[in-house]
Amino acid sequence: MKRVTPPDAMTDAERSRAIVTRARAATLSTVARDPAGYPYGSLVAVASDAAGRPLLLLSRLAEHTQNLAERSDASLLFAEELVAGAPLLSGGRVTLLGPCRLVPERERAGARATFLAAHADATYVDFPDFAFYRLEPIAARFVGGFGRMSWVSADEYLA
Amino acid sequence: MKRVTPPDAMTDAERSRAIVTRARAATLSTVARDPAGYPYGSLVAVASDAAGRPLLLLSRLAEHTQNLAERSDASLLFAEELVAGAPLLSGGRVTLLGPCRLVPERERAGARATFLAAHADATYVDFPDFAFYRLEPIAARFVGGFGRMSWVSADEYLA
Repeated sequence: MKRVTPPDAMTDAERSRAIVTRARAATLSTVARDPAGYPYGSLVAVASDAAGRPLLLLSRLAEHTQNLAERSDASLLFAEELVAGAPLLSGGRVTLLGPCRLVPERERAGARATFLAAHADATYVDFPDFAFYRLEPIAARFVGGFGRMSWVSADEYLA
Repeated sequence: MKRVTPPDAMTDAERSRAIVTRARAATLSTVARDPAGYPYGSLVAVASDAAGRPLLLLSRLAEHTQNLAERSDASLLFAEELVAGAPLLSGGRVTLLGPCRLVPERERAGARATFLAAHADATYVDFPDFAFYRLEPIAARFVGGFGRMSWVSADEYLA
């Protein structure tokens, strides 16, 4: 029988990691070129690697990708799925902040396999305008519902 | 019998407005104080007023509120609910960009009524650390699924 550590026995770093690992979608925040300097949120498909770093498959035609080309500062917000009827803000969520950059050539095959394992339907994976990006967490903000929140260091999150 | 304009007969501005009107949650992107200048995504409950401007009820203890106090530049990402089994990125979504500021005293009663109409369970509405904020759209980015996207002007969106 599989046993899962109950949420209350997990540290905020562990809960953050669990939320990211399960997520298939997230909100990417980048810095807009126009209106210049505005934080720009967009919906992305995500998968995370064994170290908990999120992988994205982005089109260079998309706004967020052009924002990242200019400035790599980014964050990703991951939210737990709510059980039916639960209050809107009662679920856990985590924001990972860090630079988001193209995955280097030598790591692309691994990124592709990780991404496709989570998104078998990503038929756009071989479109010429799409490429893999990875966010390298430098900090994580965890919110565990009302009144429970903390900053989690990158070291704790990645451990 | 009620009839609804089919999505394809709607302009991108009309679809954007419809998505925002129906939404009860969104991702708020603000500019972080630390790591300084990073775009910071967080989950918020939203309601929109008759002009399509989003209203938020935020605690001054929250990261995003402290970010806004320093710099009001913000965006809100609204995503359509997907029908079961639909591809992850097939739904419509819209990002509204603009300054997000405290609702002026004389408009607070109206904001409260609008917000509570969408969030009857917002028991925190009268907590002393909570206050209403409104994002004033200066631009909107509409994405209608794969390969359909456009910038919508604030005038078109608010019309």
